Amino acid sequence: MARCSFLDDYTEGAHPKILEALSSTNMSSQQPYGEDEYSSKAKEYIRDATGGGVPTSSIHFVVSGTLANIISIGSCLRPHEAVIASDIGHIVVREAGAIEATGHKLITVPHAPGGKLTVDSIQAALDKNAHFPHMAKPRMVYLSNATELGTVYTKPELSAISRFCGGRGLLLFLDGARLAAASAAVHTDSILNMKDIAELTDMFWIGGTKVGALLGEAIVISNQALAADFVFHVKQRGGLLAKGRILGVQFMELFRPNPAGSNLFFDLAAHANQMAALLSSGIAEAGHKLAATTETNQVFPILPNDLITMLQESYSFYVWEKAADGDSSVIRLVTSWATDQKQVKAFISAVQSWN
Amino acid sequence: MARCSFLDDYTEGAHPKILEALSSTNMSSQQPYGEDEYSSKAKEYIRDATGGGVPTSSIHFVVSGTLANIISIGSCLRPHEAVIASDIGHIVVREAGAIEATGHKLITVPHAPGGKLTVDSIQAALDKNAHFPHMAKPRMVYLSNATELGTVYTKPELSAISRFCGGRGLLLFLDGARLAAASAAVHTDSILNMKDIAELTDMFWIGGTKVGALLGEAIVISNQALAADFVFHVKQRGGLLAKGRILGVQFMELFRPNPAGSNLFFDLAAHANQMAALLSSGIAEAGHKLAATTETNQVFPILPNDLITMLQESYSFYVWEKAADGDSSVIRLVTSWATDQKQVKAFISAVQSWN
Amino acid sequence: MARCSFLDDYTEGAHPKILEALSSTNMSSQQPYGEDEYSSKAKEYIRDATGGGVPTSSIHFVVSGTLANIISIGSCLRPHEAVIASDIGHIVVREAGAIEATGHKLITVPHAPGGKLTVDSIQAALDKNAHFPHMAKPRMVYLSNATELGTVYTKPELSAISRFCGGRGLLLFLDGARLAAASAAVHTDSILNMKDIAELTDMFWIGGTKVGALLGEAIVISNQALAADFVFHVKQRGGLLAKGRILGVQFMELFRPNPAGSNLFFDLAAHANQMAALLSSGIAEAGHKLAATTETNQVFPILPNDLITMLQESYSFYVWEKAADGDSSVIRLVTSWATDQKQVKAFISAVQSWN
Amino acid sequence: MARCSFLDDYTEGAHPKILEALSSTNMSSQQPYGEDEYSSKAKEYIRDATGGGVPTSSIHFVVSGTLANIISIGSCLRPHEAVIASDIGHIVVREAGAIEATGHKLITVPHAPGGKLTVDSIQAALDKNAHFPHMAKPRMVYLSNATELGTVYTKPELSAISRFCGGRGLLLFLDGARLAAASAAVHTDSILNMKDIAELTDMFWIGGTKVGALLGEAIVISNQALAADFVFHVKQRGGLLAKGRILGVQFMELFRPNPAGSNLFFDLAAHANQMAALLSSGIAEAGHKLAATTETNQVFPILPNDLITMLQESYSFYVWEKAADGDSSVIRLVTSWATDQKQVKAFISAVQSWN
Repeated sequence: MARCSFLDDYTEGAHPKILEALSSTNMSSQQPYGEDEYSSKAKEYIRDATGGGVPTSSIHFVVSGTLANIISIGSCLRPHEAVIASDIGHIVVREAGAIEATGHKLITVPHAPGGKLTVDSIQAALDKNAHFPHMAKPRMVYLSNATELGTVYTKPELSAISRFCGGRGLLLFLDGARLAAASAAVHTDSILNMKDIAELTDMFWIGGTKVGALLGEAIVISNQALAADFVFHVKQRGGLLAKGRILGVQFMELFRPNPAGSNLFFDLAAHANQMAALLSSGIAEAGHKLAATTETNQVFPILPNDLITMLQESYSFYVWEKAADGDSSVIRLVTSWATDQKQVKAFISAVQSWN
Repeated sequence: MARCSFLDDYTEGAHPKILEALSSTNMSSQQPYGEDEYSSKAKEYIRDATGGGVPTSSIHFVVSGTLANIISIGSCLRPHEAVIASDIGHIVVREAGAIEATGHKLITVPHAPGGKLTVDSIQAALDKNAHFPHMAKPRMVYLSNATELGTVYTKPELSAISRFCGGRGLLLFLDGARLAAASAAVHTDSILNMKDIAELTDMFWIGGTKVGALLGEAIVISNQALAADFVFHVKQRGGLLAKGRILGVQFMELFRPNPAGSNLFFDLAAHANQMAALLSSGIAEAGHKLAATTETNQVFPILPNDLITMLQESYSFYVWEKAADGDSSVIRLVTSWATDQKQVKAFISAVQSWN
Repeated sequence: MARCSFLDDYTEGAHPKILEALSSTNMSSQQPYGEDEYSSKAKEYIRDATGGGVPTSSIHFVVSGTLANIISIGSCLRPHEAVIASDIGHIVVREAGAIEATGHKLITVPHAPGGKLTVDSIQAALDKNAHFPHMAKPRMVYLSNATELGTVYTKPELSAISRFCGGRGLLLFLDGARLAAASAAVHTDSILNMKDIAELTDMFWIGGTKVGALLGEAIVISNQALAADFVFHVKQRGGLLAKGRILGVQFMELFRPNPAGSNLFFDLAAHANQMAALLSSGIAEAGHKLAATTETNQVFPILPNDLITMLQESYSFYVWEKAADGDSSVIRLVTSWATDQKQVKAFISAVQSWN
Repeated sequence: MARCSFLDDYTEGAHPKILEALSSTNMSSQQPYGEDEYSSKAKEYIRDATGGGVPTSSIHFVVSGTLANIISIGSCLRPHEAVIASDIGHIVVREAGAIEATGHKLITVPHAPGGKLTVDSIQAALDKNAHFPHMAKPRMVYLSNATELGTVYTKPELSAISRFCGGRGLLLFLDGARLAAASAAVHTDSILNMKDIAELTDMFWIGGTKVGALLGEAIVISNQALAADFVFHVKQRGGLLAKGRILGVQFMELFRPNPAGSNLFFDLAAHANQMAALLSSGIAEAGHKLAATTETNQVFPILPNDLITMLQESYSFYVWEKAADGDSSVIRLVTSWATDQKQVKAFISAVQSWN
C-alpha cells in the first residue's frame, strides 16, 4: 500500500495524541476490567458531551463495532423479539450473521434515499410482520448515523422516528460507527448533536476506531430501564478487557474538552469532513456528478472508467458499482483524520487534468 | 366453527384408520424414545417408498413442522453458515424466528412465479452474499414442496436446482409439510415422486399433520454425511417423545402398502387434490379467475367482494389479499382428506348461483 | 418386550378413556394452534385444580418434558442468567444439553438426601457464584417434584425454598414430569397439592405423558410478570401444534372433575403409587432393604445379584447401581396406571420364594 | 492504587517496547482486518516458534481471552457436543457463561492436585456422560497451561492426555492465557515448549495480555481439519478488528527472535517467574508454608492473619481463602514483567521482620 489511500478511515494507526496518552499513562497501576481512573474520567466527559442525562454507570467501552452491536442488541431483547433494519444496514450485510447468532431475526426494509429508514418504512415492516405468534415480534429499530452511504439523519427525521417508536413499543438503537463524522457534518442547520441523540434513542454507541482511536467504541444506554446488569453482557460476549484502561485512555483523550470548546473527537471528524467536501467540490468542478450528496467523510463520484483506471495507478479506493451508462462507475472515496490536504489537491488535479 | 371449513387442512383430528391403529396397538408394551416396533416398521415403509436408498437409521419422526426445520437445519450447519430461502418461505414468515433462534441467518430472495426458487434466484443470492468473511456464508437452500402457494416443483426444476447446489457446495433441503399433496398432484407428467426427492435433496421431511395424522413429520436424511448423531439433535430440541410409538404407529398406517399398490398417505392427498380441482373448475365455470394454478389442495379464486361476504355466512376461509380492481379479492380455499364432496358442490352452487 | 415391564411409566400408549376422548371429538371442526374448545375447557379445569388463581391465558400445552423446560426457562431468562439445579436434575443429565443450547449456564449443587434441593444448598450455590460479572448470575432455581429419585417435597420444604427465592430475587421453577405421582403421594400429612405449588412457584408444568396421556405437558405460569408473549416461545421452539386440540382433549379428560371429587389425573397416579407401595412392602417383608423410601411410583430395592438375574428372566427393569457389599445391586421398579396388581403380586412371590 | 501491587499481571499498560512498536508503525498505511504486513510477520514468527508445522493461515489474533475461547470452541463443535473441563476452569467460573451462551454444555470434573485434568478424570467424565442421546456428547477437553493455580503440565502429563483424547475422538484444546509463564517455567526438565503444545493439541491460544501486550491473544489451529472458515467465526463474534495491525504489531514485537536466541515473550515471562521464585523462597525462609508449589508467576503463601493485615497497608493482593487453622489465610501474589525486584525484596523484608 505505498499508494495514497482513500480506501477507508482505518488505514493508519491512532492519532498521535492518543498514542501519547497511552504512553504517558502506561506505567500507572490501575484496577482491571474498566474500573480504572481513565475510564471513569472518559465516562464523565462522555456523559457531559451527551447532555449530562446519562449516568456514567450506563456508559460502557468495548473493542469493536460488531461487538458493540452484539452486546447492545443481545442485552435488550427476549428470544422472540426481532430487529427492523434497512436492507443495507451494517448488521444485515457486514457482520457475518452476528445478530442472528445471538438468536434474533432481522426484518429488513428497502432503504429510503440516502440509505435511511423512515417512519413509513418502519410502519410497513410492522404491517408485514403482524401475524402473531407465527412471526417474530418486532421490538427494536436499528439505524446508523452517519448511514452506510455517508448521509446524516436530520433532527426532524430522527425525532419523527423516535416518537413513532415510543408509541409502538419499539426500542430505538443507533449504531454510531461514524457518529463523529455525523456530528461534525455541516450541510444543514438541523444537525443532530450528541445530546439530541441521547434523548431520542434508547441506546446508541459512539465509534472510536474510525475517528482516530486504535480501537474502541462507547456504548451509551439512554433508557435506564435497559441498564441493569449490562456489564455481564460485555463480559459474556468477550468484550471486557483486563486492561480496560486502554479504552478509557483513548476516549478520555477524544472527549477531553479543549480551550476552543471542542474536543479531539469532533475536531478530527471535522477535518475528515472538510477533506471530503474539498474532494467533492473539486470533482464537481471538473464536471463529474456524485451518486450521493457528500455530507460526511465519504464521497461517491461517478467517473469515466478510463479515468478510474488512471487514478488507480496512484490511489487506493473502492469501485462501488457500475453507473447506468456503462462507461462510468461510482467510486467511493473515504477521508479521515489522517488525510493530508496535499493528497486531496493532488487527487483533484489528477481528475481535473484528465480528459 | 359450526360452518363448513375450507380454512386449512388441519381442522379435524386424524383419519379414522389412524385412530384405529393407535387404539389397536395401545396396550402393547414397547421400548420408549422411538425404539418401538411400530417406528421400525414405519421406517421400513418410508425407506421403500423413497426408493430404498436411505437406511432406516436415517429416518426420524418429530412432532411438528417447525421442530422438523429447527432440528434438521440446526444439525447441518456451522455457526457462520446461512440458509437461502424465498421471501415467503415458511421458515421466513411463519416460524417466529425459529431458525434465527438456532443462530443462523436467513438470506431471502424474491420468489419466482408460483412461489418457487430457481437457479437464477439462488445464483443472485450467492452473488449478493460473497463479501467474505463480512457476510455469513450461504450453505443451504431451503424450499417447500408443495410451495406456500400450493404449486409443485417439476422434476426438471428440482433437478436443475439440485445440480446447481451440488456444484456450489450448497446443501439442498426440502420442507415437505404438504409433500403428500405434491406427490399426488396430477397437473403434469413430470411430477416428482418420493424417490426423486430422496435422490435430489440432501435432507427432506414428509408431513403427516396435513394429510390426516394427529401430528408428526418424518425427517429423511438422504445425504449420509449428515446422518451421524442426528438423534442427539432430536433430543436436544425437545422432539424425542417418551412414547415415540405414537408417531411410529401413524406413519406405519400412512405408508403401509395397500393392495392397489398405493398407501393411505397418497390416497388421502389424492382425495384432497380432487376436491380442490373440483372447486377450481367449478369456480372457473362460473366465470371467475384464479390467482394461481390449482396444482394441489389449495385454490386461490378471485371473487367479487359481495360474493365473498355472502359465502362467509356459510363457509370459513381466508381472504388472502385484495385484487387489483378493488372490488374483488383473492381468497384461499384449502381441502383435505376430510373434505366432503357434497360441501364442495354446495360451495360451487353458491358461487354459480350468485350474480 | 413380551416380558412384564417395570421399566418405566411410558411403556404403553394412553389410558383407554383418553383414547376414547380423542375418538369422540375427532371429527369436530376446531380452530388450530390451541384455540380449540377442548384446550379452553382443559385450561379451565387446570385453573380450578390449581386453586383458581392462574388465568387460563397463562396455561400452555406442549408436547414433551424437554420442550416444556426449554420453552419455560428460555422465556424467563436474560442471556447472562443461570439456573441452579441439583447434580442429578433432569435438565442436567437427561436433556442432552437442551438448556445450555438456549444459552444458559446450569449451576449444579450436590443433591441432598432424596435427591432434593434445600435452602442451604441453594445458598451455597449463590455463595460460590458471586464473583460478578465474571460469573453468570443465578436467577432461577429448578427442581422436580416428584424428584428424580421418586421422593416428594413436603409443604414446609417447598415453602422454605419459595420464601428464600423470593428474598433473593430468584425465580422458582418446578418440573412436574411426575407431578401426578407427587400429588397422589400418601406418606405424609404435609403433601403439596396443586394449589400450593401454584402459590409457591413462579412457573411449573404438569406432566401428562407419565400419567396416561399419549403425550403432552401443561405449563402453568403462576407469576403473571412472566406471562407476556409466552406463546411466541411455544411457537419459536416448535411446540405449537397445528392440531393443538389433541393436547387439549387429553388434559380435558385428565382434569375433568368426577363425581367422587377427584379426576383421572389423580386417580391414575394413585393407582400407580399403590402398586409401588405394594411392591415396596412385599419386598421388605421378604427381608430386603430399600435404597430410598417409596413415596411415589418408583421403588429402589437392594437385591442379591442372583435374585436379580432370576427376576430378569420374566421382568424388565433397570439395574440402577451396585450396592456397597458387592453381591447386591439397587434396581429400579416403576409402576404406572397400566400396572396390573396380578403382576405385582407375582413379582413379590418370586422375590419371597427365592432364597 | 498508590500501593505496590501483586494483585495481577495486568495492572500496568504494555511493555515499553510494545508501545514503541505501535508508535513507530503508526502512520504506515495498512490493509484492514488483519491483512496488514505486521500481522503477517507476527504469524511467521509464531509459526516458527511453534515448530513450523502450522500454516500462518491457521493463526488468528483476537482481543481477549474470553473471546478466544468463545471463537475457538464455538467454531469446532456441533450443537449437541459438550466440553470437559475442570471445576475451576476459566470457562467454568470466570467467563459469565460465555461458552454456554454459544449453546454448549460444560461437563465439569473435580480438579486433580495443582488444578489439573488427568486421563483418569477425563475417563470418569466419559463414563458419567454416556447415556446417549439423553446426555450431551463429550467432544472436547479444555485445559489451561499454566493452570488456574499457576502450575504447569509436564510433557508426560500432556502427552498422556493427548493420546487418550486421540483414541476417544476428543479434541484437545489448551487455553494459554498464561502460556508464556508456563513456557518459561524452570521447575522441571520436562517442561512443554510451544512446539510440543502445537503437536499435542488440536487448537490452543497464546496469551498476550498477561505478558506485556496492551491486549491480544493468538489462536493457533494445530489440527488443520478445524481450520476451514475460521475467520468467519472471528468476524461473527466481534473479534475482527478494523485495525488488526495493532494485534499484529504487538505479537510481532513479542515473538521477534532476538540475538540471544530468545524473544520478548519468553524473556518477560522469565522475569515474572523469577520474581515469583524470589518471593516464594523468601517467604519460605521466614518459616511460612505455601498452599501450592510456585511454578510460574503466582505464589500462594499461607500467612498469619495479623501479618496479612499489616502487609495490606502497603501492598495490594487477593486473600484467596482461609487456612485450616483459622488464624491464617492463603493469599495470592502475582508478579509480572513490570514487577520491580526492589518491591519484591521489600515485601520479603516485611514478612521476615514480622513476628
